[in-house]
Amino acid sequence: MINALEAGDGRVTIIDQSRLPLEEIRLEIRTVQEMAEAITEMKLRGAPLIGVAAAYGMVLALNGSASGPAEMEALYDLSEMLLASTRPTAVNLFWALARMRESFNEVRGSDLETIRSHLRVAADRLYREDIDVNMAIGVNGSTLFEGAVEIMTICNAGALATCGYGTALGVIRRLHQEGRISNVWVCETRPVLQGARLTTWELHQDGIPYTLITDSMAAQVMKSHSVAGVIAGADRVAANGDTANKIGTLGLSILAAHYGIPFYVAAPLSTVDMKVDNGGGITIEERRGDEIRVVNGRHITVPGSPVYNPAFDVAPNQHISAIITEKGIARNPYFDSFQALFAGA
Amino acid sequence: MINALEAGDGRVTIIDQSRLPLEEIRLEIRTVQEMAEAITEMKLRGAPLIGVAAAYGMVLALNGSASGPAEMEALYDLSEMLLASTRPTAVNLFWALARMRESFNEVRGSDLETIRSHLRVAADRLYREDIDVNMAIGVNGSTLFEGAVEIMTICNAGALATCGYGTALGVIRRLHQEGRISNVWVCETRPVLQGARLTTWELHQDGIPYTLITDSMAAQVMKSHSVAGVIAGADRVAANGDTANKIGTLGLSILAAHYGIPFYVAAPLSTVDMKVDNGGGITIEERRGDEIRVVNGRHITVPGSPVYNPAFDVAPNQHISAIITEKGIARNPYFDSFQALFAGA
Repeated sequence: MINALEAGDGRVTIIDQSRLPLEEIRLEIRTVQEMAEAITEMKLRGAPLIGVAAAYGMVLALNGSASGPAEMEALYDLSEMLLASTRPTAVNLFWALARMRESFNEVRGSDLETIRSHLRVAADRLYREDIDVNMAIGVNGSTLFEGAVEIMTICNAGALATCGYGTALGVIRRLHQEGRISNVWVCETRPVLQGARLTTWELHQDGIPYTLITDSMAAQVMKSHSVAGVIAGADRVAANGDTANKIGTLGLSILAAHYGIPFYVAAPLSTVDMKVDNGGGITIEERRGDEIRVVNGRHITVPGSPVYNPAFDVAPNQHISAIITEKGIARNPYFDSFQALFAGA
Repeated sequence: MINALEAGDGRVTIIDQSRLPLEEIRLEIRTVQEMAEAITEMKLRGAPLIGVAAAYGMVLALNGSASGPAEMEALYDLSEMLLASTRPTAVNLFWALARMRESFNEVRGSDLETIRSHLRVAADRLYREDIDVNMAIGVNGSTLFEGAVEIMTICNAGALATCGYGTALGVIRRLHQEGRISNVWVCETRPVLQGARLTTWELHQDGIPYTLITDSMAAQVMKSHSVAGVIAGADRVAANGDTANKIGTLGLSILAAHYGIPFYVAAPLSTVDMKVDNGGGITIEERRGDEIRVVNGRHITVPGSPVYNPAFDVAPNQHISAIITEKGIARNPYFDSFQALFAGA
């Protein structure tokens, strides 16, 4: 069982994902500042996990020495703002902070101990919900395939991106449980290599057969092998189904359409942002150039090479065959489909 | 001036491309065995350069101590076979060995000294021809664009892949000479990173503006910037125009078609293999898995991860807007177009 995040009394421990798979190190996170830094530096990542980590960040915030209601309120506001500023694209971050704010409002004016324990209960609930949601996504997604299949995936939408089990890898885990995975094609996912570093590590641990490829090999694999579907996670899904996910997802969605291979997104409804009409409204984070220029501590290019480093791109809804959620399968037109799923929720 | 290969008396020096751009080291090649190893280990690479290197390999072969005509003949045959076995995809290798065989036949039965000097003259001719051919490709390719342009390229089809100037980079150099390059989008080209390591190095040296991206960013760049064309080199072009080139080329050709961006191949006619009807007949080299698993001497994945590592893929003719040769521009139907260009040659 992979626990990317574990909450204890007054502290949280996380797996330092920036050092996997060669080193498996757990870090102690004791303050909201440390949690913000862990998110920014991608020691933990993955939209659902970022959300829950931010929730625990708020719990840690109030472990500070706030003495009166006004100070506590100020501490809460500042901490929330700090966590909200860590990464712009994953909507789960803002969703989880909003859920925590609701909980905070419920006990506003109570004594510090009551507020602390109420927030802790709220964060624990988000944690458990996330695992349940992933299991449901796995079951729903598995119904999209018949027999034994080869699946392609990008980045890591697994146990390490969530509180356990995973979204895209949740579907793959479920299929594997049913004895139906003949191979997982893992795109290495440059520049940060979450596919090569994290997804292979998870699949290896669970004994799920996989083959690692560079991102540039996806077209050749689709052409020469029988890939039953591509499954990607999501950092934010717009109301029309346009999906922001790890850079490279847009290209995969076009290649899959070209080869007539279904392209699926697996994501909890908390990743769907009905306030954003379409992909054009999603902020795409650009990260520092050395993520591209330096691998394993050494330059792979002329030092100082000009680079462009968008961390995400947006797959347009017309290339997405279906979006797998915990409440069921959404299809184009996604706006109506999401409305129905939210109403049933 | 970049000299990837320089011929002297009884030896050849090459830039060790496996160590660029961080170390610029010239290696001495004194035997045909050393030349074969340099090609296999990709200390030199690029289809046109491999061809000329093999030609000089044959010159070095006869520097051995062959004493009689029969021994010399045996030495020649063995050396030719060794060089032919280094890499399977680039047709220039076999083309150059055939040209050398013709020269050898012209002086068969002569004394060793005559044969040696005749082969040296033949190799020098291939060397000079290659540079002339590249300059002509540059001129022909530049006519395909109007005004200042952004070009995308993959791998390294530059001075380092040829005897100087380059094919795809020959077109870019020519456009730059005319003041017409506003940016070159350089795909890093995993797994061996020829784009990140070699193309940026060449462009940096010549002061040509460029931006390095990971291969997975190509779709996002095509969507969000105005790319006037993709230009790739080629390792072998079939009679129908299907083009084997560095892995990732197939994907780029599909993405370019999707975004309505012209996709060009720049290659000498010696890369066109009229004996192969279509891309299905081109042997695709698979290389060792550690090219993917290890970067800068350290694993980027679970050691021993199963991988698939085809070094090339084939872009189908319908996605290739034109093939730029030294004799002119070929277009679909390529078979007829090539016939006309060969006839005019």
